[in-house]
Amino acid sequence: MNYFENINKVSYEGANSTNPFAFKYYNPDEIINGKKMKELLRFSVAYWHTFVGDGSDPFGQGTMIRSWDKYKGMDLAKARVEAAFEIFEKLDVPFFCFHDVDIAPEGDNLRETYRNLDEIVAIMKEYMKTSKTKLLWNTANLFSHSRWVHGGATSPNADVYAYAAAKVKKSLEIGKELGAENYVFWGGREGYETILNTNMKLELDNLARFYHMAKDYAKEIGFNAQFLIEPKPKEPTKHQYDFDVATSLAFLKSYGLEDYFKFNIEANHATLAGHTFEHELHVARINGMLGSVDANQGDMLLGWDTDEFPTDLYSTTLAMYEILKNDGLGTGGLNFDAKVRRASFDVEDLFYAHIAGMDAFAIGTKVAKRLIEDRVLDDFIEERYSSFKEGIGLEIVEGKADFHKLEKYALQLGEIKNKSGRQEKLKGIINKYLLEVYAQLIKD
Amino acid sequence: MNYFENINKVSYEGANSTNPFAFKYYNPDEIINGKKMKELLRFSVAYWHTFVGDGSDPFGQGTMIRSWDKYKGMDLAKARVEAAFEIFEKLDVPFFCFHDVDIAPEGDNLRETYRNLDEIVAIMKEYMKTSKTKLLWNTANLFSHSRWVHGGATSPNADVYAYAAAKVKKSLEIGKELGAENYVFWGGREGYETILNTNMKLELDNLARFYHMAKDYAKEIGFNAQFLIEPKPKEPTKHQYDFDVATSLAFLKSYGLEDYFKFNIEANHATLAGHTFEHELHVARINGMLGSVDANQGDMLLGWDTDEFPTDLYSTTLAMYEILKNDGLGTGGLNFDAKVRRASFDVEDLFYAHIAGMDAFAIGTKVAKRLIEDRVLDDFIEERYSSFKEGIGLEIVEGKADFHKLEKYALQLGEIKNKSGRQEKLKGIINKYLLEVYAQLIKD
Amino acid sequence: MNYFENINKVSYEGANSTNPFAFKYYNPDEIINGKKMKELLRFSVAYWHTFVGDGSDPFGQGTMIRSWDKYKGMDLAKARVEAAFEIFEKLDVPFFCFHDVDIAPEGDNLRETYRNLDEIVAIMKEYMKTSKTKLLWNTANLFSHSRWVHGGATSPNADVYAYAAAKVKKSLEIGKELGAENYVFWGGREGYETILNTNMKLELDNLARFYHMAKDYAKEIGFNAQFLIEPKPKEPTKHQYDFDVATSLAFLKSYGLEDYFKFNIEANHATLAGHTFEHELHVARINGMLGSVDANQGDMLLGWDTDEFPTDLYSTTLAMYEILKNDGLGTGGLNFDAKVRRASFDVEDLFYAHIAGMDAFAIGTKVAKRLIEDRVLDDFIEERYSSFKEGIGLEIVEGKADFHKLEKYALQLGEIKNKSGRQEKLKGIINKYLLEVYAQLIKD
Amino acid sequence: MNYFENINKVSYEGANSTNPFAFKYYNPDEIINGKKMKELLRFSVAYWHTFVGDGSDPFGQGTMIRSWDKYKGMDLAKARVEAAFEIFEKLDVPFFCFHDVDIAPEGDNLRETYRNLDEIVAIMKEYMKTSKTKLLWNTANLFSHSRWVHGGATSPNADVYAYAAAKVKKSLEIGKELGAENYVFWGGREGYETILNTNMKLELDNLARFYHMAKDYAKEIGFNAQFLIEPKPKEPTKHQYDFDVATSLAFLKSYGLEDYFKFNIEANHATLAGHTFEHELHVARINGMLGSVDANQGDMLLGWDTDEFPTDLYSTTLAMYEILKNDGLGTGGLNFDAKVRRASFDVEDLFYAHIAGMDAFAIGTKVAKRLIEDRVLDDFIEERYSSFKEGIGLEIVEGKADFHKLEKYALQLGEIKNKSGRQEKLKGIINKYLLEVYAQLIKD
Repeated sequence: MNYFENINKVSYEGANSTNPFAFKYYNPDEIINGKKMKELLRFSVAYWHTFVGDGSDPFGQGTMIRSWDKYKGMDLAKARVEAAFEIFEKLDVPFFCFHDVDIAPEGDNLRETYRNLDEIVAIMKEYMKTSKTKLLWNTANLFSHSRWVHGGATSPNADVYAYAAAKVKKSLEIGKELGAENYVFWGGREGYETILNTNMKLELDNLARFYHMAKDYAKEIGFNAQFLIEPKPKEPTKHQYDFDVATSLAFLKSYGLEDYFKFNIEANHATLAGHTFEHELHVARINGMLGSVDANQGDMLLGWDTDEFPTDLYSTTLAMYEILKNDGLGTGGLNFDAKVRRASFDVEDLFYAHIAGMDAFAIGTKVAKRLIEDRVLDDFIEERYSSFKEGIGLEIVEGKADFHKLEKYALQLGEIKNKSGRQEKLKGIINKYLLEVYAQLIKD
Repeated sequence: MNYFENINKVSYEGANSTNPFAFKYYNPDEIINGKKMKELLRFSVAYWHTFVGDGSDPFGQGTMIRSWDKYKGMDLAKARVEAAFEIFEKLDVPFFCFHDVDIAPEGDNLRETYRNLDEIVAIMKEYMKTSKTKLLWNTANLFSHSRWVHGGATSPNADVYAYAAAKVKKSLEIGKELGAENYVFWGGREGYETILNTNMKLELDNLARFYHMAKDYAKEIGFNAQFLIEPKPKEPTKHQYDFDVATSLAFLKSYGLEDYFKFNIEANHATLAGHTFEHELHVARINGMLGSVDANQGDMLLGWDTDEFPTDLYSTTLAMYEILKNDGLGTGGLNFDAKVRRASFDVEDLFYAHIAGMDAFAIGTKVAKRLIEDRVLDDFIEERYSSFKEGIGLEIVEGKADFHKLEKYALQLGEIKNKSGRQEKLKGIINKYLLEVYAQLIKD
Repeated sequence: MNYFENINKVSYEGANSTNPFAFKYYNPDEIINGKKMKELLRFSVAYWHTFVGDGSDPFGQGTMIRSWDKYKGMDLAKARVEAAFEIFEKLDVPFFCFHDVDIAPEGDNLRETYRNLDEIVAIMKEYMKTSKTKLLWNTANLFSHSRWVHGGATSPNADVYAYAAAKVKKSLEIGKELGAENYVFWGGREGYETILNTNMKLELDNLARFYHMAKDYAKEIGFNAQFLIEPKPKEPTKHQYDFDVATSLAFLKSYGLEDYFKFNIEANHATLAGHTFEHELHVARINGMLGSVDANQGDMLLGWDTDEFPTDLYSTTLAMYEILKNDGLGTGGLNFDAKVRRASFDVEDLFYAHIAGMDAFAIGTKVAKRLIEDRVLDDFIEERYSSFKEGIGLEIVEGKADFHKLEKYALQLGEIKNKSGRQEKLKGIINKYLLEVYAQLIKD
Repeated sequence: MNYFENINKVSYEGANSTNPFAFKYYNPDEIINGKKMKELLRFSVAYWHTFVGDGSDPFGQGTMIRSWDKYKGMDLAKARVEAAFEIFEKLDVPFFCFHDVDIAPEGDNLRETYRNLDEIVAIMKEYMKTSKTKLLWNTANLFSHSRWVHGGATSPNADVYAYAAAKVKKSLEIGKELGAENYVFWGGREGYETILNTNMKLELDNLARFYHMAKDYAKEIGFNAQFLIEPKPKEPTKHQYDFDVATSLAFLKSYGLEDYFKFNIEANHATLAGHTFEHELHVARINGMLGSVDANQGDMLLGWDTDEFPTDLYSTTLAMYEILKNDGLGTGGLNFDAKVRRASFDVEDLFYAHIAGMDAFAIGTKVAKRLIEDRVLDDFIEERYSSFKEGIGLEIVEGKADFHKLEKYALQLGEIKNKSGRQEKLKGIINKYLLEVYAQLIKD
C-alpha cells in the first residue's frame, strides 16, 4: 500500500479541526437513530470516477496523472485494485461500486473479457477477506464500447442484445461472487436518438424481456441482490427510456416487473429531468421503491450531468430527510457517483472531495434527524391535512363518498377558508435548523 | 351575427391565393385516407383563448378589446356564445372546447353558478341545433378561483375537494347535455409548490379516488365521453402530478384507472417536460392511449407555456405522422389551445392565427401521408430491426431465449457489425417530402 | 396605524429566539466593518409586491385579501401609504422603492395621472418627515398598461415614446421631491417578440436617445440620484435588450452612456440569463458599476421569474462577498423585489418572508465578512495567479511582452506544471464558514 | 485519391433527383444576387469534425472507422490531408477550416510541434496549388491539451500564457502561409469554473493584452486576415468570457479592440446562450461585425453543443436573411462546424450530412432572397415604424426633442392607437414563401 503515501487515514477530528484531511462533521461511530453513522449512511466510492476517470471531457484530454498510470492493461487493472483498497481504508468507507469495464479491460473477444474479469474478481475477493469494505453494487457497462452505439438491451441488432445478455449474466455472477448487496441497471444508451429511425415499442418490449431474463437468472444462481434501475432522462442518448422514477415505474408496471426492482436515484439525474433530488427520492419512497442513492450534485446552470461531489447542505438535508423517513436505505447506500473537477487533478483532491461529501451528508443527517424528531414538518403537514381526519374528509378517504354526497355537501358550504402554505416561514425554519445543528456539534 | 362584420367566411382558395382570409392548403372537403380532411383533423376552437382571453400577462393588462366586451356578467356570457358560433361558422370548424368558467360567470354561491351555467348551456344547445359545430370536450376549471390555491382534487382542504367534485359533477352533466365526445382533466393546481408542506401520498390517493368517482358518475348518467388526462409538468404549480404521459400512465396503473382514460397531449406541455411533441404522442399511441391533441407550439427559448398557434411544419408533420399511424384520433380532435400574441390584438389576428394553424396542419397531414404511403420510415425501420425477425432475434422476441442461450450465442460471435442510423439522410428526406408536397399542391 | 394590529414591531432577539416575529440573526445596530448592519445592508421593501400584489398568476385570481382592500381608487392608494409606513416601522427597514403606478392609479388622461401622483407624493412626503424610512429608488412603469404593448422607449409608435418620456420626466421629479437616492430603468417591454417585425437598430438608437434625455433632464432639475439599469433577459418580452450586465454595458458604451449609469442587479434575472447572482454582481463590480441589488431568489427548475424571498445562505453569502468587496452599495441597497408565494396569503406571511430574507442576508454578511477577513479566497487567488507578479508574467501584465518574446520564452519551457483549482476543498471551506459563523453567533 | 472510392463527385441534379449523392437544391453555379451560389455561400468543411472526429462522446468510445485510420502519427496527418482534398473536390466546397492540432500531432516539445506543423502545411500548400478549395480560417487549439486546464490566454499560469502566445503566433504564420481569409479565436477554456478561485479582472485584462499582441503580430507579418471572435456561453468551461455577441462586444469596446475584430457566429452557441441564431447574426450585423458563420444546429431539448448538420429550413432561411441583408459575409463563409451523429458512422453519412446542409442553405437562400425582393418584412417594418419619419417621431430621431417637448406633446394626446404586431400572419407568410420557392424550383 503506497499509492497515497503522503496521505494518512482520515479520521473524525470534530468541527474545530483545521486539518484538511480530517472529517469535521462525519463521525463514523457516532450513534444516530440507534445505528452507527457509517451503518446508516453506507458511503460508497465509485470505482469509475475515482480509479479510472482522468479528467478528460469532450473538449480535452485527461488532466489527472495517478501513480498507478505507469501500468498498462491487466497490470493497470491490478494496480487499481490495490489503490482502491488503500483509499477505501484511508477513507474508511464501507462500500464501493463498479461497472465490469472499470475493473478489467475488455479482451479481444468475450471469452478473454471473462478471463480478465475472473482474474481481477479473484484478486478483489482476496482483498475483501481482510478489508472492511464491501461491494454495494456492480453493473455491466453497456454504453462505452462502440457496439452499444444503438443501445444494448434495446439495440436494433439481435447480436448486440445477445452480447448484452452475456455481459449482464457475467456481472450477475460477479455480483454473487463478491457478495454485492444490489445490482444496478443504468441504460445510458437504452433510448433513442431520433424517432425517425426507431421502433420504440419493440425496444421497450425487448428491454422488458431482458429484465425478466436477468431476474430469472439471478434467482437461478441464488444471487439475492436487490435489482435497481437508475433513471436518467438524457445524455448520452437524446431520450433515455428510464427518464425518471415515474416513467420507469410505468414501464415496470406495464411489464409486470415492479416487484423485482427498486430505484437507484441520482441527484444530478433528477435535476436533468426537471425535478429536485428530494422529489425523486420521495416518489420512490412512497411507492416503496427507494433502493439506493448516487450521491452527487449538478450545476443548475449547465445542461449536462456534471457529477459534482455533494456539498450543498440543503440538498443533503432534504435527501437525508427522505432516507430517514424511509428508515434508511436497506441494502442500498450513498454512492459517490461524483468526480473531482477536471481542474482538481491532484490526488489530494480525491480526498478533499470525499471528505467534503461525507461531511455534507453528516450535517444533512443531523439536520434531518432533528427536523423529524421535532416533528417540524410532520406537525405542520398533519394539521394542514387535518380536514381528512373527520367528517366529509374522512368519508372521502374511507371511500364512502361519491359525487352526489360531495355535491350535496358543497352546496351547503359558505365561503371556503384555506390556510396559508407558509413556504417562507418553513424555509426560515430550515435555515434555523441547519445553523443550530452545527452550533450543537461544536459545543459538544 | 355581426361581431365580425368585416370578415367573410374563410374558404379554401388554394396555394396560389393571396387572400389573407383564405385557406391555402387546408381544403375541408378534400379526401385523405378515405375521409374528408375536416373529419380527419377535427379542428376545434378553444373558447378560453379566443373568446375570453384579453392579452393580459403577468406584467401587463389586456390589450384586446372585442366587440362583445361592451357587455357585462351574464350578458357578456351570452354575447360570447353568439360571437363564438359566428367564428365557428366563419372558420368552418367542426368542434369547440370549454372550461365551465369560460362560458358563464361564477355566481355568489355554487347554486347560482349552476344556474348561470344552465342558462348558457341551454342557449348553446339551441345554437348547436343548427350549427355544424359540436363540442369536442368540456372540463371544469379547478385552478383560477382563489379557493383552488392548494389544488382541487389534491387540496389539503376537504371542503375544497367536495367543491371540486360538485364542479366536475356539473361539468359531466353539461358534457352529456351538449353531447361532448370527450371530457378532459387538466390539473393545473394538482401538484405541489414545496415538498416541505406536502403529503404527496394522500394527495395522489385522493386524486385517484376523485377519478374513480368521476367515472362512476359518468357511467351512472350515461355520459359515454372518453375521459382524457392532459399532462403538463409545471406552471402554474411548481410540480404537477400529471408531469407527462409516462408519469400519468404510472399513476393510472397504480390506481387501476388505466382502462378509463386516454391522454390529451399538448405540444407546449411536451416541450416543458423535456420531450418533443411527437415523443408524447408516440408514447401515448403505443400504449393505446392517444386520445386528443391540444394543437399549439411553444418557444423553445422561453421556460413557460406560450401557447402559440402551430405554424412549424416539421412539428405538424411529425404530429400528423403519429395521428395517421393511430388511424386518427377517434373521438378526439385537434384543439387550438393557442392564443394570439398579446401584440396581435386585432380581431383579424384571430382569423390569421387559426388559418395559419389549420394550413400548417393540412400541409403536415399531406407530408405525413406521403411518408407513410411511401414507407419512407417504415421500410428503414423494418430493415433496421430485421435481425429480430429470424434466428436468435426471433427467439428473443418469442420469449424462447434465456441468458444461457444468449451467452452461448454471444460467445461464438465475431466482431459485431452495426448499421448506421442515418439520421442526417432521414432529415434530408423529410425536407424533400415537405417541399414536394406543396409542389404537388400547387400543380394541381 | 392599525393595518397590522396583531403584529408588533419586529426586533432582534438573537439566535435562540423561537418567536417567529423576531429577527434571529439580523441585528440592525450591530457594527460590521465600522457600520451599523442596517446602514450596510440598506434593506428596502418593494411597494409593488408588498402593497399591491394580490397573488394572482397567469392561471388564477388573487388569493390575498389585505385590510386596505376595502378601499378603492385614490382612497386605496392613500390606505396603502398608511399601511406601508406601518410595515416600514414594524420591520424597521430604512428604505422602500416604487413604480409610479404602484402608488397612484392612472387617471383618464396624463394630466389626471399627474394629479393623482402629486396627491400621493405629498402624503408620502408628509409621512417621510417623521419616518426613518427613505426612498431608495423610484421608477416609471412602462410595461403594464396596454399602450406599452410594443415597448415604451423602444415602441414603434412615436406617440408612445413621447408618453413614456412624460412618465419618466414626472418620475424624475417625484424622485427629486422625495429624495430618492437612485432612479431605476427596467425595460420589461423594451425588446422584441419576433425579429420578423422588428427594427432593432432604430429601437436601440431611440432607447439611447431616451436615456440621454433622461440624464439631461435630471441634471436640469438637480436630481442627483444614481441612474440604474436593471438587466433581465426575457419575460414579459421574449428578448429584452438589457439581457444581462455585459449586454447592457455594451449598449451603454456604444452610445456614450457608460458614465451615467450603474446596474441594479436581481438574483432571479441573473439566473434567467444563465448566470449566477454572484457572477452578475462581480461583472458589475469589476466594471465599477455595481449600483444596487434586487434581493430575491429564483427556482432553478422553473423558467420564469419567481421572485422568491431570498433564503439560500450560499447565495446571500456570495452576494454579500461581492458587496463587501465593493465597499458596500453606495447609494444603493438590498431591495426585496420578492413576493410571498400565492399560497402564503396571510398578512403574517409578509412578515415571515421579510424576516427570513433579512436574517438570511445577515448570516450571509457575517460569513462573507469572515471569508474576507481571513483572506480565505484572497490568499488562494493571490497564490494562484502569483506567476504574474514576476518574470515573464510581470512583463505580460506591464505590457512589456510581445509574441516574439513570449514564443522565445515558451520554446525553452519544459513540461508546464499547473496547480489544482481545488474547487471541492473551497466548497468544503465555504460550508465550514457558513456553519461556524452561527456557532459564534449563538455563543455570544 | 482513393479514400472514398465508391463515392463519386456530388453534382447538382435538381429537385426531382432521387440520387442520395446529388445536390437537389444547391446549384453551385446558379446566379443569385449577381453571384454564383458557391461564391455567395462560401461553404467550408470543418477539418476537426470530418477528418479527426471519431464519434466518441463522454460516455463512449469512437464508432467511426475511417480508411485513413490505419496510419499513425504524422502518417495519419498526411493521410488526412489527402482524404480532405478528396472530399473537398467530391463535395466541390470552396473552403475549409482547421485548428493547428487537427492537422498535425503535437510533438514532445513546442519545437517539434512546429516542425510537424511545418511539414503538413507544406503538403497542404502543395495541394492548394491545384485545388479550388481555399482556407477560410485557421485557429490555434488552446483547450484540448491538459496544459490548458485553467485556460490559455486567461490561465493563472504565466507559462501557459506564453505557450498560448507561441501557438497563436505560429498559427498566424500558418494562416499567412496558406492564405487564410480569416483567423478565429474560440476561447473554450477562457472563462472560469468557479468564481471562488478566480481573478476575473486580471484574466480579462490578460486576454485583452493577448488580443492586442496578436493583432500587432499579424500586422507585423502582413497577415491581413479578418480576426474573428466566436462567442459561446459555456461548455467546456462553466462560464466562458465570450458568452454571446453582446458580451464580447462589451469586452472589445472596454479594451479598444472593436476595430480589429468581427464575429464568427454559431447557431448552436446562440441557442445555448438563450438566443436564436438569427438574433446573434442580427446583433453582429447592426454593429457592422458579422464576419463568418459556423453553420450547424442544436437540439433545443439538450443542454449541450450537439453540433448537428443544419437541416432546419426556418433556421437557414432566417440566417440567410441576415446574411443577404449584410450583403454577404465578406471574407467569411458558412463553415459546417457540424458532426455526423455518433450513430451515423459510415463514410457515406459524411456525404449525406454535407449534402443535407448545403441543400438546406440553398433553400434558405432562395426563400430569404424572395422575402427581401418582395419586401415582405421590409415593407411591414417600414410601415410599423413610420411614425418616426415625421412630426414628433422625426424630431426624436433627429435629436431635436427633449423631455419638455415630449411631455407637452404627450399631454395633448388622446387615447393612443397601436397597431397589431401580426406575428401569426407573418409566420403564415414565411411558410408560404418556404413552400413556394421549391415549387418554383421544381417547375424550372
